[in-house]
Amino acid sequence: MTERFVAILMGSDSDYPVLEPAVEILRSFGVRFEVRVTSAHRTPAATVAYVTDAESRGCGVFICAAGLAAHLAGAVAANTVMPVIGVPIDCGPLKGVDALLSTVQMPGGIPVATMAIGKAGAKNAAYFAVQILALSDPDLLNRFREDRSRAAAAVAEKNEKLQKLAGCA
Amino acid sequence: MTERFVAILMGSDSDYPVLEPAVEILRSFGVRFEVRVTSAHRTPAATVAYVTDAESRGCGVFICAAGLAAHLAGAVAANTVMPVIGVPIDCGPLKGVDALLSTVQMPGGIPVATMAIGKAGAKNAAYFAVQILALSDPDLLNRFREDRSRAAAAVAEKNEKLQKLAGCA
Amino acid sequence: MTERFVAILMGSDSDYPVLEPAVEILRSFGVRFEVRVTSAHRTPAATVAYVTDAESRGCGVFICAAGLAAHLAGAVAANTVMPVIGVPIDCGPLKGVDALLSTVQMPGGIPVATMAIGKAGAKNAAYFAVQILALSDPDLLNRFREDRSRAAAAVAEKNEKLQKLAGCA
Amino acid sequence: MTERFVAILMGSDSDYPVLEPAVEILRSFGVRFEVRVTSAHRTPAATVAYVTDAESRGCGVFICAAGLAAHLAGAVAANTVMPVIGVPIDCGPLKGVDALLSTVQMPGGIPVATMAIGKAGAKNAAYFAVQILALSDPDLLNRFREDRSRAAAAVAEKNEKLQKLAGCA
Amino acid sequence: MTERFVAILMGSDSDYPVLEPAVEILRSFGVRFEVRVTSAHRTPAATVAYVTDAESRGCGVFICAAGLAAHLAGAVAANTVMPVIGVPIDCGPLKGVDALLSTVQMPGGIPVATMAIGKAGAKNAAYFAVQILALSDPDLLNRFREDRSRAAAAVAEKNEKLQKLAGCA
Amino acid sequence: MTERFVAILMGSDSDYPVLEPAVEILRSFGVRFEVRVTSAHRTPAATVAYVTDAESRGCGVFICAAGLAAHLAGAVAANTVMPVIGVPIDCGPLKGVDALLSTVQMPGGIPVATMAIGKAGAKNAAYFAVQILALSDPDLLNRFREDRSRAAAAVAEKNEKLQKLAGCA
Amino acid sequence: MTERFVAILMGSDSDYPVLEPAVEILRSFGVRFEVRVTSAHRTPAATVAYVTDAESRGCGVFICAAGLAAHLAGAVAANTVMPVIGVPIDCGPLKGVDALLSTVQMPGGIPVATMAIGKAGAKNAAYFAVQILALSDPDLLNRFREDRSRAAAAVAEKNEKLQKLAGCA
Amino acid sequence: MTERFVAILMGSDSDYPVLEPAVEILRSFGVRFEVRVTSAHRTPAATVAYVTDAESRGCGVFICAAGLAAHLAGAVAANTVMPVIGVPIDCGPLKGVDALLSTVQMPGGIPVATMAIGKAGAKNAAYFAVQILALSDPDLLNRFREDRSRAAAAVAEKNEKLQKLAGCA
Repeated sequence: MTERFVAILMGSDSDYPVLEPAVEILRSFGVRFEVRVTSAHRTPAATVAYVTDAESRGCGVFICAAGLAAHLAGAVAANTVMPVIGVPIDCGPLKGVDALLSTVQMPGGIPVATMAIGKAGAKNAAYFAVQILALSDPDLLNRFREDRSRAAAAVAEKNEKLQKLAGCA
Repeated sequence: MTERFVAILMGSDSDYPVLEPAVEILRSFGVRFEVRVTSAHRTPAATVAYVTDAESRGCGVFICAAGLAAHLAGAVAANTVMPVIGVPIDCGPLKGVDALLSTVQMPGGIPVATMAIGKAGAKNAAYFAVQILALSDPDLLNRFREDRSRAAAAVAEKNEKLQKLAGCA
Repeated sequence: MTERFVAILMGSDSDYPVLEPAVEILRSFGVRFEVRVTSAHRTPAATVAYVTDAESRGCGVFICAAGLAAHLAGAVAANTVMPVIGVPIDCGPLKGVDALLSTVQMPGGIPVATMAIGKAGAKNAAYFAVQILALSDPDLLNRFREDRSRAAAAVAEKNEKLQKLAGCA
Repeated sequence: MTERFVAILMGSDSDYPVLEPAVEILRSFGVRFEVRVTSAHRTPAATVAYVTDAESRGCGVFICAAGLAAHLAGAVAANTVMPVIGVPIDCGPLKGVDALLSTVQMPGGIPVATMAIGKAGAKNAAYFAVQILALSDPDLLNRFREDRSRAAAAVAEKNEKLQKLAGCA
Repeated sequence: MTERFVAILMGSDSDYPVLEPAVEILRSFGVRFEVRVTSAHRTPAATVAYVTDAESRGCGVFICAAGLAAHLAGAVAANTVMPVIGVPIDCGPLKGVDALLSTVQMPGGIPVATMAIGKAGAKNAAYFAVQILALSDPDLLNRFREDRSRAAAAVAEKNEKLQKLAGCA
Repeated sequence: MTERFVAILMGSDSDYPVLEPAVEILRSFGVRFEVRVTSAHRTPAATVAYVTDAESRGCGVFICAAGLAAHLAGAVAANTVMPVIGVPIDCGPLKGVDALLSTVQMPGGIPVATMAIGKAGAKNAAYFAVQILALSDPDLLNRFREDRSRAAAAVAEKNEKLQKLAGCA
Repeated sequence: MTERFVAILMGSDSDYPVLEPAVEILRSFGVRFEVRVTSAHRTPAATVAYVTDAESRGCGVFICAAGLAAHLAGAVAANTVMPVIGVPIDCGPLKGVDALLSTVQMPGGIPVATMAIGKAGAKNAAYFAVQILALSDPDLLNRFREDRSRAAAAVAEKNEKLQKLAGCA
Repeated sequence: MTERFVAILMGSDSDYPVLEPAVEILRSFGVRFEVRVTSAHRTPAATVAYVTDAESRGCGVFICAAGLAAHLAGAVAANTVMPVIGVPIDCGPLKGVDALLSTVQMPGGIPVATMAIGKAGAKNAAYFAVQILALSDPDLLNRFREDRSRAAAAVAEKNEKLQKLAGCA
């Protein structure tokens, strides 16, 4: 089997600023990915066609971001056997609560792995895709471990700085 | 044009008790209808196939009921130009709030006419389908007016009874 | 029967910016419409008088937008047999959740076809009114189909652009 | 001026069990009242006619109870200058949150004095009506003060009993 | 009996901009009023002392505004037999939902007449106080009726303007 | 200083079943306590009098439980400098969300240490009172540590049993 | 690498009935698994020890179920680089909304793949674990595809039956 | 026993502006404190290590602030027998509702004393820590009483100013 890639789909190009960190994270891990704007509602046939084609070309994880009545992740999950990660986008007056419930409350049989609303969720979607692919890629797993260590070190460094700021070091 | 019919779709057969009043209402108005169990997630291709076929056979209104991350109405609306009415079902621990938001918060371009959660919404979906079809069917419109009058008379009758019960008639 | 028109009612003139896209959409489809400010609470008699008159002059669909305890759509639906579409406005601290529940949770017998909160809902109210009228107007139905195709093409075009932006084309 | 009476209106006779304590309270204070089933949506003209007539006959306070998209209190307030008290009923899957927001979030100009959801609110609607009428009725005010004292004494008595139960008296 | 006055209490002076319209409304109706900053939590004894004193001096209605865990209206209602109106303030991250529930969900026996969150509620608190006092003051009732008519006329005027703006006059 | 005791206050005797586990926990730790029914709204003066007296007699921690617009904990906190723990009770249709927000969202200056809604919160109120008193009572602190160990051992035991039940031991 | 297994962890043995379908699904797919009761709060050290040991023994996916302030999934994710799936349990008065937000709103860097509240989520956790492991196990992927086909066939069969029930076949 | 100190922990240095008032309050009371950035998810082992060490060095109260799925307070409470106070931070689109529920809904056995969302809660966390320590420190208790008096006097002073502003002095 060729190396798996990640497909990042979003319902609207206006969601891209939220997803850009996910793109950066995948790039930093050297994971191949594709980015598409495709809508569960405005281009349903194109969405199904892309998903089917991507799966056949070796897509291993789909990341789907959408806002409001966010159906994109569910629509993709209904058309692939590959793992689907959903990112609820906080557009609109309900601040993503609608997107969260539309993404996470999937009925039994068709799971969507839901992340936090907005940017935190977009980042974590990328990290989670890396974790999935790393299960069968020891090098990737090592790079993931190193990234975790760097993140922990960054917290420790901020801790040092804050203690000075708070005047209690 | 042949007479339009109404398609009543539900994501699970367990939703049927909630939808039965809608079936009764359509039957009482002499409106033709079809009932189908079809899932946006478990049978996505069959759902699209049915919607396309129903539209070509003269379906004029789709009523779609689903619970949880209720995508059925949106998935149908994405595949037809006919009016789609959504009924959020109050299954699951969130009591239909998830289904309401998944149904009503459709992005611009693909409307779903959303009714109340549960039985009240199921009844109103049938009434609303009648109102849509009655726009070009004066006989149906007359029957709808008569039904409204009967409903008002029923309230008046309950009013009479309650006053005796409350001891203030 | 003369050609049906759409009545767009709003509880306050401050709601007009939200409804302007609905006006544009109806105009672009060549659908006749009227716009009125009328309040279920401050001008209840004038509201009923307008609804009765509009129905007698051939109004086929009412679009009603209001915020907070949004009663306008329900008050109109109580006084006409024509289909009523409700648009919850996201004014006030609750961001339209109050307006959504006040509009969608109609008791059995008097349906209001509820759209999303705010601008997305206003647009969809106009599209849905077009869908209702197109049921008995084949030319309008064709124009609606074409509009859908153009919307799908716009998504495809944005997809092309985004892929370049994301550096993965 | 003849003595003011209280009008208790409810949208459905199924709301009566919730309102019965309000009836009992008014009766215990010797306040005259009328009870009516009238619907803002199913019998809008009858509702307006009753309100206008009741005001002319000396109604001093309206108590309006309704569930779901509870418009009754607002519809009454729009048609009278007398104080209107709203009681949200906890029917339906949303447990009265819909009725609460539909009742309390009235726009500026047409107030509805909103009470708690369900039975606590029904009782308090009656007490509040008594407080309003007692402003110009010193005897009624005295009876209200005595009732408050009795309620406080009842708490003190329960306190005695509980201490024994808890084994710490 | 001397003429009744209205006491406007707020938990914090930062709430005053929200309550200023209430002050203006009472002034425009020629209703006497007092304004106080007093806190159910920071100055509990002073709050009770003021309420007792105000009642003895002829206060007929208390308007209490507070945010967060808004206890002021309930604390006042517990210490007076006069009608108490509560205005939930939308300060803090929960936008007044906390204040609404803390104000409206009073247990049976101690009612608080709750208005909408924020400015709409502040205005309506003043109007409702006028309605209560007008029950025994025919002149005030007349002025209230005239104000309602002016408000209706203002809606009609806005309706005229909007029709020109929307290009459909 | 004499040994501190804990005062357990509840707004209604119907809350006692929820609080009984708290009573048992204090008893099992040998901590002295008093139980009282007292209402912030129905017996405000008695509440203040009890709190003042209890503080003077050596009360070290107040545990206050109430439902709906739960003001008891805040009212107590306003009248003592001793730590106050609040337990929101899940009575009424909102299932304790109202009580939670009314208890936890205290304005700056008058803290209430809020626990989970209902029985879990009642238990934790007792544990937390023990933790506070144990700060200056090494024996009590030792008993608390032992209790924690027993709780951990109970989880381990349940773990053993479940593995057999799940057929994977 | 030895074959990966799935660890199913729950915060309390009372959660097991909700998780039993997950156990059945994994068993039906022939996926190895372990079941443990372990608490993020009552046995934090044992939880970390188990996670570290399980990862070293070949655990490929952790499924973590908990209710209320559900920290278990997050606590596990903080201590492993393997994918973690969270199932919010609907115990307590908030019906799992607390558990959902405590599970899904993870900050950037430590993802938890969150499923629906309760039984639907438990089933989907097992299916999603299968999808992850199937990425590098073609036989498992085939069994997963067959299961999906059977589920779709089951919907079709229910559709047949319902049409007879609804009297429209 | 040496004098107890307070540990202020936060999940991210971006939370510091919310916590700064807590630092100021502790400093003004002359209470010793430490400030640390430590994450339940990114640095779980360091968090446990710090908590254990701090307890052994005489930490008497932990104040833990975090946003989103806020696990920090629970994770600390699981690893110490000292009282833990939680402050939910209102970062992210849900405005701290997620952090509130993740902090307050602790299961029975491991309490977290939860304060209001955001700055009000941060201040109250400091005041509550002072109240706990003051139980065995009469001087600190006196300073706390004086601070309360000053806060009450400040309200009285604002009351004077507002009356002039409102034109009713």
